[in-house]
Amino acid sequence: MPTLPKVVHVYEVGPRDGLQNEPTILATDLKVELINRLSATGLATVEASSFVRPDLVPQLADAAEVMSGITRAPGVRYPVLVPNVRGLERATECGVTDVAVFASATESFAQRNLGCSVRESLAMFAPVVEQARASQLGVRGYVSMCFRDPWEGDVDPRKVVDVVGALAEQGCEQISLGDTIGAATGEQVTTLLAMLSDAGVGPDLLAMHFHDTYGQALANTLLSLEFGITTIDASAGGLGGCPFAKSATGNLATEELVWMLHGLGIETGVDLPALVATSLWLAGELGRPSPSALVRAWPMENHE
Amino acid sequence: MPTLPKVVHVYEVGPRDGLQNEPTILATDLKVELINRLSATGLATVEASSFVRPDLVPQLADAAEVMSGITRAPGVRYPVLVPNVRGLERATECGVTDVAVFASATESFAQRNLGCSVRESLAMFAPVVEQARASQLGVRGYVSMCFRDPWEGDVDPRKVVDVVGALAEQGCEQISLGDTIGAATGEQVTTLLAMLSDAGVGPDLLAMHFHDTYGQALANTLLSLEFGITTIDASAGGLGGCPFAKSATGNLATEELVWMLHGLGIETGVDLPALVATSLWLAGELGRPSPSALVRAWPMENHE
Repeated sequence: MPTLPKVVHVYEVGPRDGLQNEPTILATDLKVELINRLSATGLATVEASSFVRPDLVPQLADAAEVMSGITRAPGVRYPVLVPNVRGLERATECGVTDVAVFASATESFAQRNLGCSVRESLAMFAPVVEQARASQLGVRGYVSMCFRDPWEGDVDPRKVVDVVGALAEQGCEQISLGDTIGAATGEQVTTLLAMLSDAGVGPDLLAMHFHDTYGQALANTLLSLEFGITTIDASAGGLGGCPFAKSATGNLATEELVWMLHGLGIETGVDLPALVATSLWLAGELGRPSPSALVRAWPMENHE
Repeated sequence: MPTLPKVVHVYEVGPRDGLQNEPTILATDLKVELINRLSATGLATVEASSFVRPDLVPQLADAAEVMSGITRAPGVRYPVLVPNVRGLERATECGVTDVAVFASATESFAQRNLGCSVRESLAMFAPVVEQARASQLGVRGYVSMCFRDPWEGDVDPRKVVDVVGALAEQGCEQISLGDTIGAATGEQVTTLLAMLSDAGVGPDLLAMHFHDTYGQALANTLLSLEFGITTIDASAGGLGGCPFAKSATGNLATEELVWMLHGLGIETGVDLPALVATSLWLAGELGRPSPSALVRAWPMENHE
């Protein structure tokens, strides 16, 4: 059997990627409680919000209030998304220490999500990354639609390599490869990782971000781990989707990821029962069952 | 990366394992249409029904009518479950050529599902397997609760090895290892396969049967393929569950399995769009969305 990492960094995106796609807008104090509860489960990163234009993503319009309201646990990072220098400035005023920019591998999605071309978006991010690094902030780059796009079908991996290369050159310390619609195949995953490696971007610089629309998220995670990837994005309770690609369903559920990792003897530092309890609480607040089958089934089983 | 098989045998269990757990009882002519449609997609095996006592599983009480009604496609096998010699005789009268017995690795589930101990159930199966083989029928053995049991928690793999050994000795040509509640971990899967291999039961004799309660089915399938397993059970549209273990949700969806396999360059012979169309049709007949996220999302995407 192939070698797997001994430790995996679970990068929780639920309060941002999950909530921004929920039809219900959660009250600010509940978002704060969610983030505080998540950071108490042992997660080292809890992506907390997004400083985009409030009219574009009303679900996260209270980013500043959320960042002021949370209790920052020692050793936990609370990154936020920033689309441009204005967003970065608003985030910095709230004492944010980690930010992320979000690019697309396809023109179709760049136009729909950012209202500009891939090239224009990279030009918009360059000063954000530069200024963030000059201020000693951590900077992550996201690349959406790395494998399949609802308008363009299968994505040419060379497009992804180009965008990843540009973000790395700008100074992003980590780049997260998004299967935004959740339909990536194993061969696409390993082919892209091999091409990136050939281009000088090894697994240490990368994270994987799978949605679970076609049920492939964990299998593709496993292939990524076998390739040397050690950071995996996930969303508590499997919240999320993509407002601009209606065929996309939720993110990989953090609980299902952690169950797999612990079940392979891989450490995460996460207290799984506490995480399940958090997602069950959140489902109650959102007024519907958790999207994660594990979270729904857990209370019916004997977990001594 | 590890070596994967070039061809995988997808063992479709939807008309049996799926429908027996549906709250709605499907009309006989619709079951016949389902089986005929499934066998037209290129599936080489379509498990068709179960000759158990009709009062115990009313969903499959029409097993004889179904077996008489279907059109048997050349090269396709239509196995049925038989619990005892009486069931075998009823099946044989309908011209069945392949049967399966169903054991449990745990006493708790044997009592609930079969009303007897594991040892008593094996004694009940012995004459079934003997008589079936004497009649040149194909014989499969199922083992339920191979990894985790809702009453007993984690299952000692030595119990599974014992039951598998007994079924192999009786003459079962293939033994399907069931994660009946869908909570197996990767380490449990590879540990059990290694122990079976040490006991002389190699991957050629085995099939894997995963439910997807904790979202682990495809990841565990991938680990099994890396171990040399080449037969995987799945249920069209992810139908199914387990009436005696309420925390269990559906089987691994055949469509999500086939998407993964084709996406890894592994041949199955299955026409995926035809399979999705069959599951969408069936969801309409059952009056609710397909349990499979892939089946639900497929029509929204561009599959040229």
